[in-house]
Amino acid sequence: MQQRIYFDNAATTSLDQEVLEAMMPYLTEKFGNPSSIYSYGRESRLAIENARKSVAKILNAHPAEIFFTSCGTEASNTAITASVRDLGCTHIISSPIEHHATLHTVEYLHHNGEASLSYVQLLPNGHVDLENLEQLLAETEGKTLVTLMHANNEIGNLLDVHAVGNLCKMYGAIFHCDTVQTVGHYPFDLRNTPVHFISASAHKFHGPKGVGMLYINENVKIKPFINGGSQERNMRAGTENLYGIVGFARALELATAHYEADSAAVKSLKLYMMEQLKKNIRGVSFNGDPIGNSLYTVLSVSFPKTEKSEMILFNLDMAGICASGGSACTSGADQGSHVIRAINNNPNQVTVRFSFSKGNTKTEVDTVVSKLKELI
Amino acid sequence: MQQRIYFDNAATTSLDQEVLEAMMPYLTEKFGNPSSIYSYGRESRLAIENARKSVAKILNAHPAEIFFTSCGTEASNTAITASVRDLGCTHIISSPIEHHATLHTVEYLHHNGEASLSYVQLLPNGHVDLENLEQLLAETEGKTLVTLMHANNEIGNLLDVHAVGNLCKMYGAIFHCDTVQTVGHYPFDLRNTPVHFISASAHKFHGPKGVGMLYINENVKIKPFINGGSQERNMRAGTENLYGIVGFARALELATAHYEADSAAVKSLKLYMMEQLKKNIRGVSFNGDPIGNSLYTVLSVSFPKTEKSEMILFNLDMAGICASGGSACTSGADQGSHVIRAINNNPNQVTVRFSFSKGNTKTEVDTVVSKLKELI
Ligand SMILES: Cc1ncc(COP(=O)(O)O)c(C=O)c1O
Ligand SMILES: Cc1ncc(COP(=O)(O)O)c(C=O)c1O
Repeated sequence: MQQRIYFDNAATTSLDQEVLEAMMPYLTEKFGNPSSIYSYGRESRLAIENARKSVAKILNAHPAEIFFTSCGTEASNTAITASVRDLGCTHIISSPIEHHATLHTVEYLHHNGEASLSYVQLLPNGHVDLENLEQLLAETEGKTLVTLMHANNEIGNLLDVHAVGNLCKMYGAIFHCDTVQTVGHYPFDLRNTPVHFISASAHKFHGPKGVGMLYINENVKIKPFINGGSQERNMRAGTENLYGIVGFARALELATAHYEADSAAVKSLKLYMMEQLKKNIRGVSFNGDPIGNSLYTVLSVSFPKTEKSEMILFNLDMAGICASGGSACTSGADQGSHVIRAINNNPNQVTVRFSFSKGNTKTEVDTVVSKLKELI
Repeated sequence: MQQRIYFDNAATTSLDQEVLEAMMPYLTEKFGNPSSIYSYGRESRLAIENARKSVAKILNAHPAEIFFTSCGTEASNTAITASVRDLGCTHIISSPIEHHATLHTVEYLHHNGEASLSYVQLLPNGHVDLENLEQLLAETEGKTLVTLMHANNEIGNLLDVHAVGNLCKMYGAIFHCDTVQTVGHYPFDLRNTPVHFISASAHKFHGPKGVGMLYINENVKIKPFINGGSQERNMRAGTENLYGIVGFARALELATAHYEADSAAVKSLKLYMMEQLKKNIRGVSFNGDPIGNSLYTVLSVSFPKTEKSEMILFNLDMAGICASGGSACTSGADQGSHVIRAINNNPNQVTVRFSFSKGNTKTEVDTVVSKLKELI
C-alpha cells in the first residue's frame, strides 16, 4: 500500500498517543459529571482544574484566566462578541487575512449595526502595516477592538503581538489575538503580554478535536457567550467535555516540553523544502514572508498556472500526499482563498499550502518535491 | 472496596463501551480534517455524514435537518437566539422549570431588550397549564417563540409535545423543545411532529460528552450562532468534533435498538424504588407526576427536613451512592433548585433526585433504600 505523507498539519494534526492515554480513564470508568457534588463528580472536577492549572502555567497566566471552549472558533466568537456587547467597543479593527472565525464574526456584528469595522492595510509581504494600524486607532472616537491573528494559517506570517498590544494600550483599545496556529508551537508569557484575549484549539497541536480555550485577562469582565449552567465559573455553559479538556492540557504539555528542539527540526524541514522547490521547479514562488517573521510550520507555495498545475491538489492526493489549497474550513466550498487573494491576486498562479509537524521527515520532503516535479 | 451505585444518570451517563469502540479509529489513525478535500479528509467527512444520516433516520427527520453542536446547551442557545434574531420572534413563552440552558438564554434576550418574556403557569403536579399557554399565545400581538422542555430533568414531568406544537401552529408561533432528557430514551417521529427545533446531548444516553445536536425543521432558515468556517453546511463553524459526532450517532443507535425492553426495565426500577421508599420511610413524598406522564428514568423524592436528612447527599456519597439535589449544572453552586422551588416551595423538605439507566438493578435499589432508612 502507498505510504501517506501528511503535510497538512495547519488544518489538523494527529492525536498524540500519549494524549489519548491521558484521556482514556475519562472515556471509560471516570465519567462523573464535573458539577456533581459527590466524590465521583469531584474527581472529574479535579481533572478539569488540574488541566486548567497546567495550561495556565505553560502560558504563564493565572488559572482563573483560562476558559475551556468547544473549539478555537467559539473562543474567538466569544471574545469578539463580548468586546462589543459587554466592553463597549463600537469600532472593530481587523485585517482582510484573518481566519473566517474572526472575519465572519466581525462582519456579522458590523452588518447587525453593533460596531463599525475597518481593515488594517497590509504590507506587500502580507504583514500588518503597524503605522496604518496606529493611524486607524488614532482616528477612532469610540472604544476599539483590535482583532488580529498571531500567525496566519495560510501564509504563516507572524504578528508582532507586543507591538500591537502596546499600540492598543496607548489608545485604550481591547486586543484579541487569534493564536490558534501558535499555542503549542511557540512559548507564551501572557502575564507580560499586553493582550486581553487569546484563542486556541487543541487539534492544532496533536490534541483532540472539539475542544478549545479562551484566555481572558483577569482585568476584563465579560458575560458568557453560551448561556446556561454555571460551568467554567459561569463563563461557558454546557456539561464539560471532560476528556477533551484533559486532552487539551496533556497535548499542550507534550507540545511544549521539547519546544526548542521540535521547532528547530520542523523549521529546517520548511527551509529544506523551499530550497528543493527552488532548485527543482521553475517559476515557483512563496507567499508571505517565509524566511522572515513566519510560522515555522507553514509553507505557502505558488506554481505558475498550467493545465497540470491546476490539477495539482488532486494529483497529490492520488499520490497519497495531503496538502491544501487554503484553509481547511473553506476548501470544501472551493471558493479560493481570501488570504491569497488579499496579498497576491495573481490569476496565473496556483497556490498550495504545505504544513509540517514533528512527525515529518526530510525523506518525505524529497518524495513530495520529486512528485511535484513530475506533476508540474 | 465499596461498590459504587450510580443513580445520577440524568446528570450524565457512562460512555458505552461499544460507542468508544466506534470512536477509536477516529481517535487514532483517522484524524483527517473533514473539510479537507483529499481522500483522507473525505473519509472523515463520510463518517460525519453517515452519523448524520443515522441520527436522522432514528428521529425520522431529514439528514439536512440535523446539525451537530458541542452540547445540548449550545443547541438550545442557537435555537432560541435565532428565533428572536432571525425569525422575528418578539415574545418568548417559557416555563419557570426549564433547564438553565433555556432560562438564562431567554432572560438574556429579555434583559437585552430583544424580546418580551412570559412564563406559562404550571398545574399543581408541575405540568404546563395548556389553557394558560393558549391564553398567552392568544394575547400576543407579535410573533412568539415557545420554548418548553420535553422532559424536566429534575422531576421528570413530560410535556405533550403534539398538543403544544399544535397550539403553536394555530397561533403561528415557533416551537423549540429541549429534548435533552428524552432523545435516546423515547421514540421520535419528527416528520410528524409540529416542532421547529429540538436539542439533544450525547452524554445523556451513554454517548460522549462535548457533543450535542440541534434539529432544525427544513422550513426554518436561520443564521449560525457561532460564525466562522463553513462546517455543518454553514450553520455551525469550527473544526468538527469528529469522534464526538461518530459517538453521538452510535450511542443513539444503541440506546434506541432495544428501546422497549430497556425502558420497561428502567421504569420498573423507578416504580419499585417508589414502592420501597413508601414502605420504609415515613413522610416520604414524590415531586411532579411520577406515575403519570413522567420520564421513566427520574424519581424526585422529598424527605421531611431533619438534621439527618439535611446531610443526606453527603452521607449517600460516603456510602458510595451517587444521586443529586437538583440538576448537576447548578449543584456545585449550591443555590438550591429553581424547579423544586417553583412547584413545591416547602422549606421543611429535602429533595433528592435519583435517576436510572439500563445498567441499574433492583439490588441496587434495595441497597439504596436500606441505606436511606438508616440515614433518615
Ligand atoms: C433538560 C436539559 N436541558 C439541557 C441540558 C444541557 O445539556 P448539556 O449540559 O449537555 O449542554 C441538560 C443537562 O445538563 C438537561 O438535562
Ligand atoms: C488561525 C485559525 N483561527 C481559527 C481557527 C478555527 O479553529 P477551530 O476550527 O478549531 O474552531 C483555525 C483553524 O481552523 C485557524 O487556523
